[in-house]
Amino acid sequence: MRTLTHCFLAAILSMPLAATAGGIVLAVHGGAGAIPRAELTAEKEASIRADIEAALRAGAKALADGGSSLDAVTRAVVLLEDSPHFNAGKGAVFNAAGVNELDASIMDGATRRAGAVAGLHRIGNPVELARAVMEKSVHVMMIGEGAEQFAQSVGIAFVEPGYFRTESRWQELLKAREAAKKQASLPSSAYYGTVGAVARDAQGRLAAATSTGGMTNKRFGRVGDAPIIGAGTWADSGCAVSATGWGEYFIRSAVAHDICARVAYRGDSVAKAAADVLVEVARLGGDGGVIVLDAAGNAALPYNSGGMYRGTIDADGAVVVAIYTE
Amino acid sequence: MRTLTHCFLAAILSMPLAATAGGIVLAVHGGAGAIPRAELTAEKEASIRADIEAALRAGAKALADGGSSLDAVTRAVVLLEDSPHFNAGKGAVFNAAGVNELDASIMDGATRRAGAVAGLHRIGNPVELARAVMEKSVHVMMIGEGAEQFAQSVGIAFVEPGYFRTESRWQELLKAREAAKKQASLPSSAYYGTVGAVARDAQGRLAAATSTGGMTNKRFGRVGDAPIIGAGTWADSGCAVSATGWGEYFIRSAVAHDICARVAYRGDSVAKAAADVLVEVARLGGDGGVIVLDAAGNAALPYNSGGMYRGTIDADGAVVVAIYTE
Repeated sequence: MRTLTHCFLAAILSMPLAATAGGIVLAVHGGAGAIPRAELTAEKEASIRADIEAALRAGAKALADGGSSLDAVTRAVVLLEDSPHFNAGKGAVFNAAGVNELDASIMDGATRRAGAVAGLHRIGNPVELARAVMEKSVHVMMIGEGAEQFAQSVGIAFVEPGYFRTESRWQELLKAREAAKKQASLPSSAYYGTVGAVARDAQGRLAAATSTGGMTNKRFGRVGDAPIIGAGTWADSGCAVSATGWGEYFIRSAVAHDICARVAYRGDSVAKAAADVLVEVARLGGDGGVIVLDAAGNAALPYNSGGMYRGTIDADGAVVVAIYTE
Repeated sequence: MRTLTHCFLAAILSMPLAATAGGIVLAVHGGAGAIPRAELTAEKEASIRADIEAALRAGAKALADGGSSLDAVTRAVVLLEDSPHFNAGKGAVFNAAGVNELDASIMDGATRRAGAVAGLHRIGNPVELARAVMEKSVHVMMIGEGAEQFAQSVGIAFVEPGYFRTESRWQELLKAREAAKKQASLPSSAYYGTVGAVARDAQGRLAAATSTGGMTNKRFGRVGDAPIIGAGTWADSGCAVSATGWGEYFIRSAVAHDICARVAYRGDSVAKAAADVLVEVARLGGDGGVIVLDAAGNAALPYNSGGMYRGTIDADGAVVVAIYTE
């Protein structure tokens, strides 16, 4: 437990909780369980940091242009999906059948409207489909072929299956298949890189969004926490969360809703609530991280895994990007 | 609000909260939004009541035979799935494509293990597949064809698609299609009859399970709250919930987890927590009901819809079955 506590504290301390009087307006993550530092070249690290910063600046620009917190999280997540570095959209991991299978969700804290999609094979930006489900259907969650039929009906563009493929993810699948033959437990690298964002707009409205390719070598049809409202994503009037990690444990802990319930019902700070829920996840055997934002602009970005790609931007446009505890 | 409050109170008062010193060991529901009383023949009502009682007695027998709370909720839900009266398993509603599409989930409060399945077309007892996902896979949630492939791999029997069909459900689809042409809002009959159970075993361990055919005339691929851990189903060491109602609103309220969070973090009784969360659901525009059980055997079965098929059995084998506020 000492290591865990250290890790939480270090991660929390490494990020500004409310950098300025205006507070944080947007936080993003590119997934927990980051690449071992020894394997990350300077060039690749610079490229990853640049993509996180670009997502933060794009989301903040949406807010500056008068957009809602929903617009900000959508925009930020689209950029992270478009980056090949993260396990969402382009660069998603492969499932056991050698196919990319994508999930996403989004929630508007002010109205508690939500949209979620799972089991997509041909949608380049799943977060945009999740938002369309929220805004253009009477449903909250749609899966598989039915979700793609809905996408077609609302004019969302399809991509060729090859669009998602990156050589490094393919190699990860081959490695995971080998590992699966030898042992029951999955390598922690199996769930690198889910992306997500939480934002707060000028009206104080919160929103959260999460997008993922799931777990390398997952069974065809497996759904993790990312598209589960209450597990991977939650937003209400006081608190917004996007999670990343070993999805099974995050579902079993209802991570995103539990953090906001602790804030609402016990008066916990977002930092305490997030850290305590990650301890609960660890108790069950899981690991990962979360980004959390409250209505006053206080943010917490703790994790109990090897690292978490993450960043914040405050009301003055000051950006902080981090990968490890630094 | 007066009507709502009346309805909650009436519903809560109509059920024994802890009928005996031993308390409730199992509660079940056969769905909220029950058939208008005028449409329910005496013969049909007797048959429905008999099926609810049979599910209660079968679950209680599993407990009496030394089974776990998980065994009890599995057994009770299997019987409700097998009954043509409820919208789960045999007798499931048809989606917009004229197909039965089934979802289920189960959760063990003591270990917080969970299993969930969605988008099934050929599994007669989805709750058994949800339990197999929990016990025989490393995943929590599996959907569609992948979930059915997994079912095959663990020897769960398939049924012919025609198995689920009942004439009354087919007529409901035809009516819902007509209604959809005329108006945007769905008839409340569209979500009759999800089933679920909550149980408590001799060791005080809680479990919950929920199974459904979803919403009549739902879009192909729509997923409601039943297979969402935290929305339709939740169990932890102190509280277990199975929900039924307009799934979209139940997801947006994380109903099952929110009830247990209020019990854990605010010290609310299960009755107060359940009633307050249903008020929140109503505020968003939804309706339905929940069955909740705590570790001491206190149960609450409130609803804010036209009725809820429901029943309890206590430690002495005393059964109460109800449909309306009676």
